[in-house]
Order: sequence, then structure tokens, then C-alpha cells
Amino acid sequence: MDERAYLERRLHQDIPLTQALGLGVLGWQDGELRLSLPLTANLNHKSSMFGGSLYCAAVLAGWGWLHLSLREAGIVNGHIVIQQGQIDYTEPVLGDAVALCAAPPAAEWERFLALYRRRGLARIGLHSRILVDATEAVRFSGQYVLHR
Amino acid sequence: MDERAYLERRLHQDIPLTQALGLGVLGWQDGELRLSLPLTANLNHKSSMFGGSLYCAAVLAGWGWLHLSLREAGIVNGHIVIQQGQIDYTEPVLGDAVALCAAPPAAEWERFLALYRRRGLARIGLHSRILVDATEAVRFSGQYVLHR
Repeated sequence: MDERAYLERRLHQDIPLTQALGLGVLGWQDGELRLSLPLTANLNHKSSMFGGSLYCAAVLAGWGWLHLSLREAGIVNGHIVIQQGQIDYTEPVLGDAVALCAAPPAAEWERFLALYRRRGLARIGLHSRILVDATEAVRFSGQYVLHR
Repeated sequence: MDERAYLERRLHQDIPLTQALGLGVLGWQDGELRLSLPLTANLNHKSSMFGGSLYCAAVLAGWGWLHLSLREAGIVNGHIVIQQGQIDYTEPVLGDAVALCAAPPAAEWERFLALYRRRGLARIGLHSRILVDATEAVRFSGQYVLHR
């Protein structure tokens, strides 16, 4: 099974709310993870997308990026915890959305891996964003902790 | 219909995801709103509560507080938009949770109402928190915009 299908199954099984969100995994390529979030399942009172649903997609883009990147680094038994999140809604979301998370700077990633291998505990900041067509509508920063 | 039942119906109708979250309105008393969030519907891969569900309850506690307080102030036609959210997860949530939002300082609230009445646009910061039994597990701050 490819990594895209693996992550989607993992999300739907482990976090059942992702099924209600209609969250899908679009792709995992060149160190970038892309998730899909349909408008219909996530409407609010203004017929745009509910800000809570957008947060879920953004935080899971970071979680999924970290989960897949750790697998590639041979770390499969760590526990990922979200410690802090900051979200900015810059545009209303009036259509289906794509949440993206790309790699942090290589030096940060290497430091994070080294710290986890040495101490069994490390923290990293990840950034994700949500696009509708080509427009950026949401920016998210999360602090994720990895522990044994 | 009392305000508690009104808000719960409003949330379930206008934001269908709140049904999947199992979100309920516990009470609206002395300017404080309390929402309930059950663990079972919101489990994550660690058998604790999914951070995205916690964010949804926290942001909706603020939204609901603002919605009911504006009704009490006689403002029923404004549109509430969430502009920014900041969440801190201080303890894992291993049981059913309660999200609370209380009134901001009276001077801030009066300034917010006056600005909206004069210009049709105003912004206010609201704080909510999530408790499990008597323990605070999540702190949230949101910037909400009200416009005509």
C-alpha cells in the first residue's frame, strides 16, 4: 500500500472525526503532504467553511507530515502530541479546500531527530496552510512534541 | 424556548459538524456559557481527545457566548467571523470535557458594542477554556469580528 492510502486509512481509523470531516489524503510527494477537505460536510451558518473544520485539517496536515516523515527516518514508535496551535483566517473558504504542509528547514529537522534519538523527547514547529483554488485562506503554526 | 435550548438547536442546524462532535449546550448563566464535548465521539489515536475537536469546542464556546450576549444587547443581525485563534493544550483530555467562555472585562464589551453601533464593524478578543473534572486542560484565545 502506498503512503497516501496508508495515511488516509490511519486517519480514518484512529481519529473517527476525520470521516465526518470528509478528510482525504491527496498526495505525499517531495516532502509535501496535501489533504482535501470538502465544503459540504463542513458548512457553517454563513455557507462558508466552519473555522473549526479548517483548524482540524491544518493541524492534521502537520500531524500527517510528521508521521510520514518519521516513518521515512525509521522512527515508528514515537508518540506525537500537539502542544500549541495558532491559526489565522485570512479569507473566507467558499469551496473545497486543500491543506498543505511542507518540510521545515533541514537544520531544524535534523536537530529535532537528533534530540529525539538522544533524549526520547523533542519538539518541532510546523507550518501548514489552506488553499481554495490558488488563494491562501488560512495559515497555521503548530508546536508538536514527539516522545517515547 | 430558553436560551440554552435555542443555542443548541442553532449550532446543530447551522454547523452540522457539531452533531458529529456530540457538542451540547450545558448552560448559560451569569454571563458564562458552558458546552459539553463527549470523549467517545472525539477519540484520537492515543485514546484521548483529538486536539481538533477540542479547538472546535473552544472556538464555539466563544462564538456562542458572543451570539447570546449580542441577542441580550438587542443586536440580532450582525455577522460573527473568527479571525484568529490561539490554543494551548496543557493536559491530555481523557474524559468528557466542558468548554467554558465567560464575559470579557465590562469596559471592553461596552467599547466593542459602541464601535459596532457606530461603524458596523468591531473586533473583540474572547477567552475560553476546557475542563475535565476540575482540571483545566486547554486554554483558547480567539479574535472575533462582528460586521453588518
